[in-house]
Amino acid sequence: MPKIVDQEERRRELAAALWRLLVRDGTGAATLRRVAAEAGWSVGSLRHYFDSQAALLAYSMELVIDRVTERVNALGPDADPAALLEETLPLDEERRAETQVWTAFTAAALTDPSLRALRDESHRRLRSLCVLAAGGDERAGERLHATLDGLALHALLDPEVTDAARQRELLRDALAAAASDR
Amino acid sequence: MPKIVDQEERRRELAAALWRLLVRDGTGAATLRRVAAEAGWSVGSLRHYFDSQAALLAYSMELVIDRVTERVNALGPDADPAALLEETLPLDEERRAETQVWTAFTAAALTDPSLRALRDESHRRLRSLCVLAAGGDERAGERLHATLDGLALHALLDPEVTDAARQRELLRDALAAAASDR
Repeated sequence: MPKIVDQEERRRELAAALWRLLVRDGTGAATLRRVAAEAGWSVGSLRHYFDSQAALLAYSMELVIDRVTERVNALGPDADPAALLEETLPLDEERRAETQVWTAFTAAALTDPSLRALRDESHRRLRSLCVLAAGGDERAGERLHATLDGLALHALLDPEVTDAARQRELLRDALAAAASDR
Repeated sequence: MPKIVDQEERRRELAAALWRLLVRDGTGAATLRRVAAEAGWSVGSLRHYFDSQAALLAYSMELVIDRVTERVNALGPDADPAALLEETLPLDEERRAETQVWTAFTAAALTDPSLRALRDESHRRLRSLCVLAAGGDERAGERLHATLDGLALHALLDPEVTDAARQRELLRDALAAAASDR
């Protein structure tokens, strides 16, 4: 099926252009016009692969989920919970771009019902990972999940205060607090 | 200064229309067109008071800060920290609309530099309140702040799981954890 493979390659090429823009210019860069310019495409050609901003964001969010899942799985079943959850925090350039996709996607999903199924799936998967990291305790896991998403957001909002070292410290504190709840 | 008073009254009238829309239709309703329709104004007349979506969101965010500050101050200096912080969580219809203003404003500020000063002010004020609630411990206060913002976001994203009772429980757990850090 060479045509399907080709389509998927083109989509990945466009998502890579979005990634470069997010790393360089932040969440505001996630527009069809700017992605087309970055990839060296016309907006019309891009629309053949993504017919809306929402479609581009949904595809990018799916890539984020795949990448995080792959890294979490690579750590194996006996991994340190802190190491697992660090894969979702904006601790380096790559994860910072992923967090920017998450915030742009989540904001868009607040106003676009077509994005809600994927948003709910992503929200629930991270909650399950947090409940697991909290030793199976739902309540402690939900609190950990809130802390984790709040930390990711704060790292984008105020990167001087919530830098990588602070995110690691606060994640470890939150995991210790979850463990002492049990 | 009757003209200035009048302008301020018109702005409040438009903000009230935005509030009603947010309560009824969620964050997606925060557009100039829909606010004009809700207030019974033309978009052109509305633009005399708010020349952009960003200006309307900034004004609404200032109202949210004023309202939360007023309620926090009314509780007095000896108030229970849980009661103080509950004023920032979407526990009823009014605070839910405020949280919707916060998310719409924060998302817009990620892409609009004109909103960053107000966003930073609001972010830092809530962090200070959290550090205070954590007995002055910066690190415990920052973790509490992350949990609080994460909870507010989760209450919008998944209101069935993160309902008002669960928000109160998780806030109390987070405060207990902050106290035990000291």
